[in-house]
Amino acid sequence: MMKNDLPLSKDEILDAAEQVLRRYGPDKTSVVDVAKVLQVSHGTLYRHFESKAALREAVTSRWLHTSIVVPLDAIAGEIGGSSVDRLRLWLETLIQAKQKFAAEDIEMFAMYANVTVIEVEMISTHVYRLIKQLAQIIEQGMASKELKQGDSESIARAVFLATSRFHHPSHAAEWGMGNMTEDFENVWQLLLGGLI
Amino acid sequence: MMKNDLPLSKDEILDAAEQVLRRYGPDKTSVVDVAKVLQVSHGTLYRHFESKAALREAVTSRWLHTSIVVPLDAIAGEIGGSSVDRLRLWLETLIQAKQKFAAEDIEMFAMYANVTVIEVEMISTHVYRLIKQLAQIIEQGMASKELKQGDSESIARAVFLATSRFHHPSHAAEWGMGNMTEDFENVWQLLLGGLI
Repeated sequence: MMKNDLPLSKDEILDAAEQVLRRYGPDKTSVVDVAKVLQVSHGTLYRHFESKAALREAVTSRWLHTSIVVPLDAIAGEIGGSSVDRLRLWLETLIQAKQKFAAEDIEMFAMYANVTVIEVEMISTHVYRLIKQLAQIIEQGMASKELKQGDSESIARAVFLATSRFHHPSHAAEWGMGNMTEDFENVWQLLLGGLI
Repeated sequence: MMKNDLPLSKDEILDAAEQVLRRYGPDKTSVVDVAKVLQVSHGTLYRHFESKAALREAVTSRWLHTSIVVPLDAIAGEIGGSSVDRLRLWLETLIQAKQKFAAEDIEMFAMYANVTVIEVEMISTHVYRLIKQLAQIIEQGMASKELKQGDSESIARAVFLATSRFHHPSHAAEWGMGNMTEDFENVWQLLLGGLI
């Protein structure tokens, strides 16, 4: 007998999935484990998520939205002040969120790093959203003449790609080595020279 | 009875190791397999390489030296002409060598990508050598006033890190996606703006 017969919200399922993924790790977590935590039949869960991969993707996607997209969107949406300062704050916020996640939530980060390789479409959409935010900041800087004129979206993409070393999960193994603050400062100064 | 009783050169061992690694892949290759190809006892081989990891590291290190360091050193060592052109040629040569390797020599590339994560010291030394080459080009450009003045080694490191997306093996899965040529062009233009 299953205890819970009420309809499950997507967030309830993802909360349980995240909890189970954290406990057992992505390789050992099955849809059945998540169903057990929720005290529902695995049939109920399969109606929402047809595979373990779909569940992982949804958990990662939610994490990216809450921890990355939302706070960065708030920065990108600010008006007035220096666009250069805003651009730097945006990049530092992205980098710190990724590095904090890598250091403090190892199981979940490993899953996210794995998803970036497998769920190409989901990650492309996510990256495109971030580049649009960068473009928004850059456009404002171009309008105020703080930044050189140019194609804001190409430049935004270039800034995003040129800082991959600091925020792309494939580089996580290197984040503990050397002097990240100094390295970022040097890359930032170089990029800034091309932007202003 | 072992056929080959003559002393083995390091290159002979590495040739055999590379051949075996290509055939079976890094996970399934053992020092014993390499000894069989060379028709020597595995004791003989263990005197040169104490573990499978040491053998992999040596094969990767040789590949990096021959395919990357030597051709790039020839570019960095050129005198006269435009330093901007030389810098771009150096980066494009590095990127093309990595991408060609990733596409055409999958087993060996996978091993190299793995070694970059595990053999931190070997890879740091390799990266430092490449950054010194970049600094050499940048110094010449500063001397001829083609490039802005600055600390050549910090700038060289920044250029290397800012182009990671195109040459770091952790990004290999993304090399086939999107428009790499356009992406590199945009990053290059941004960096160039900071360099000249």
